[in-house]
Amino acid sequence: MTSGDSKASAVVPSGAGMLDSFHAAFEQGDMQRAGQLLESLHPSEIADALEAIPWDQRPALWEEVDTALKGEVLLQLRDEARQQLIENTGKNELLIALQSLEMDELADLDASLPISVVDAMVRAMDDQSRERYEAVRDWPDDTAGGLMDVDAAVVRSDVTMRSVIRYLRQLRAREKQLPEHLDSLVVVDRDNTYLGMLMLSDLVSLDPETAVSDIMQTEIRPIPVETSSERVMRLFEDQDLISAPVVDASGKLLGRITVDDVMDVMRGVAEHEVMRRAGLSQGTDIFAPVLPSAMRRALWLGVNLVNAFIAAWVIGLFEDSIDKVVALAIFMPVVASMGGVAGTQTLTLVARGLALEQVRSNNAGRLLMREIASGLLNGVFWAVVVAIVAILWTGDMQLGLVFGAALVINLLTGAMAGTLVPLALQRIGIDPALAGGVVLIAATDVVGFVSFLGLATLFVV
Amino acid sequence: MTSGDSKASAVVPSGAGMLDSFHAAFEQGDMQRAGQLLESLHPSEIADALEAIPWDQRPALWEEVDTALKGEVLLQLRDEARQQLIENTGKNELLIALQSLEMDELADLDASLPISVVDAMVRAMDDQSRERYEAVRDWPDDTAGGLMDVDAAVVRSDVTMRSVIRYLRQLRAREKQLPEHLDSLVVVDRDNTYLGMLMLSDLVSLDPETAVSDIMQTEIRPIPVETSSERVMRLFEDQDLISAPVVDASGKLLGRITVDDVMDVMRGVAEHEVMRRAGLSQGTDIFAPVLPSAMRRALWLGVNLVNAFIAAWVIGLFEDSIDKVVALAIFMPVVASMGGVAGTQTLTLVARGLALEQVRSNNAGRLLMREIASGLLNGVFWAVVVAIVAILWTGDMQLGLVFGAALVINLLTGAMAGTLVPLALQRIGIDPALAGGVVLIAATDVVGFVSFLGLATLFVV
Repeated sequence: MTSGDSKASAVVPSGAGMLDSFHAAFEQGDMQRAGQLLESLHPSEIADALEAIPWDQRPALWEEVDTALKGEVLLQLRDEARQQLIENTGKNELLIALQSLEMDELADLDASLPISVVDAMVRAMDDQSRERYEAVRDWPDDTAGGLMDVDAAVVRSDVTMRSVIRYLRQLRAREKQLPEHLDSLVVVDRDNTYLGMLMLSDLVSLDPETAVSDIMQTEIRPIPVETSSERVMRLFEDQDLISAPVVDASGKLLGRITVDDVMDVMRGVAEHEVMRRAGLSQGTDIFAPVLPSAMRRALWLGVNLVNAFIAAWVIGLFEDSIDKVVALAIFMPVVASMGGVAGTQTLTLVARGLALEQVRSNNAGRLLMREIASGLLNGVFWAVVVAIVAILWTGDMQLGLVFGAALVINLLTGAMAGTLVPLALQRIGIDPALAGGVVLIAATDVVGFVSFLGLATLFVV
Repeated sequence: MTSGDSKASAVVPSGAGMLDSFHAAFEQGDMQRAGQLLESLHPSEIADALEAIPWDQRPALWEEVDTALKGEVLLQLRDEARQQLIENTGKNELLIALQSLEMDELADLDASLPISVVDAMVRAMDDQSRERYEAVRDWPDDTAGGLMDVDAAVVRSDVTMRSVIRYLRQLRAREKQLPEHLDSLVVVDRDNTYLGMLMLSDLVSLDPETAVSDIMQTEIRPIPVETSSERVMRLFEDQDLISAPVVDASGKLLGRITVDDVMDVMRGVAEHEVMRRAGLSQGTDIFAPVLPSAMRRALWLGVNLVNAFIAAWVIGLFEDSIDKVVALAIFMPVVASMGGVAGTQTLTLVARGLALEQVRSNNAGRLLMREIASGLLNGVFWAVVVAIVAILWTGDMQLGLVFGAALVINLLTGAMAGTLVPLALQRIGIDPALAGGVVLIAATDVVGFVSFLGLATLFVV
């Protein structure tokens, strides 16, 4: 698929063929053709393509991108790549590029923009736009206020649907376009208090003489402006919303959140979930320059090194025993690693339960019992296996029994730490997904080595 | 927030207070009140609440749920909980509960339903419904075909918008409702070939005498029916779609995918990503009975035990060296674990890049070089740190140097394995996120122990 023929592209998903052609042209060093191919892609695909090429070659290709598309592309890029390309765009070009964005999108981007550009951008706005922009900007990105659009199409409840349609036609004629993703209008009373939603599908299919108040859907609960973006995401997921009204503490309408912004949150959360378990930040660029990216990873390695040295110190306490029975050194990593694996399974389940608010103070105790029971079952089963292996390997019955007993102890430790560590971290306000793994492994390593080497010191050596 | 007062609930997000009251009533054993509180929740919240209570107490509460809501609740439950509650519902009640679902939802659910219920359900359908149901059911759940609704509201391109509105009013009068999440209508020609989308917002705001063909948006590319659900998800995310048409190979319209189904895919993918890294399946129920849940986890522990014994065997090869210098046993886990941590960071980045198709055959080599450079930088830095620690600890210069050298080797191994393992697994069709971690840790453990103990055997012992 190399032509731009729209008939042929009708059944090709997402310009996948186009992307392949782009990479082929890029690989052959044909920048001009690569640039042309880029033009035919969607801004999000351009962002993907830019992130997939080496850091130092991006600015050259960035120059080939149409200025009118650059605003959307910047919005789709991850933090590191976005910062890089903003630094490679002139101030005037940036200002033109940003004109195509909505106010909530500008507010998402403005932390990355040079102050002088933000100033110029705000100065160039008309009063209404500036007001909208400032209304969104004042709320943190991760709240309903940061996600909302303030261009919500609003109607009053005491008018007929015919007047609503007349109003929409006037609005359209005046502004040339309606707000994006308009599936419904927000209904308010005289005081701008939220009352309900008027679905466009009702507007086009029901009797035009009906009053808005008779048709509007009142079961859509408005979202308080300070609600966290993760909770907004869950509301949209759970209730299959396309758009939802945002209100202040007194129920007055402030704006509207649309599902496309919520999908961006979902994507971010999903990536964040996976990345933070490896101590990486979500904005990490796979082709970022080596030195800064190595330095960012160094911190996580350092944290884990402290962990590893704590375990080493514990082993060192039993130096004499290892000196006498060297087989202890052979089997001790098995006990430690099995506890870590079992604990990670529990931790993953409990962290999910906490995020979904399914694990609560009133059922945490029951959950702990369940995990301990499960750890005990697996502990006994695998203890028998490792004891038999160790006895066959070394011929030392005593050592096999100690090995098995230590494994039971460490799988129980994994179950307990996997349950209690995320609960404790959440209580003191630390992200269980980021720090949970480190604390858990510290616990299972220490208990694993102490139980195995300690029991061996008592019964084997 | 304990009353059902709708004024008061206006600013409470998602019945969070209601859920708390439910758990309080449940904890006090007041099943009747718990049941009443459940009634006031959204089906997805009922599902969350059911999953958050112990397995054996769910059936009693399930009986309190209104039959009309049970279909939606079943749809929202995770696999294990869903199966449990279907088994606790009478056949006739199931049939009534399922009536509220859409055809694509029924098709999602039918693998969990008893055959006799599916048969009865299909027999009770009218011809049109049966046809729609079978059209969706024949496609796998993880394709565009499995996600689509076949009730797409369709119009022809050669009519005016006034006739479209007249048609929608007739349809509404006849069917009592329009398809859910209707933000647009699909425009086709006489042969049912997809032409474009007519946005409802255009329908209500532009001149009613205009022809559909002049207004319809043609830039929305239709999705081929066999497209994978993950790619559908990315299309919706990237292009901010609310709904999109699904077509066969010849471009004929088959149905419509709406964003709410795509959000379910996103949620599933996000959960799956995190869960499979711990060897858990996405449907895992946090309160499932202990024995089966312990058995499911046993497999993953077994896989890791094989890994651990391979490492133990490698250590065993150097038994004599450890016997002579017991400090080797103290430091060897540090080398192994640091390689594992560094490798996991690379693996996480590369697996994300593969999923987003940013890592391709033409840039994999460059990526490997980058990761090796980053591993080398961190290796040298941390090698100096561990060498100093080991020299201060043991007073053995030789041992410190060997320790540092082994750490460099193992961080490089982590970088290489973290890049090559997911690439290789993807090539042979194995999910890198599930198997990648196991293979990686096997590599960094073996190389970690061999390099440290091997170098020590040559230079220290």
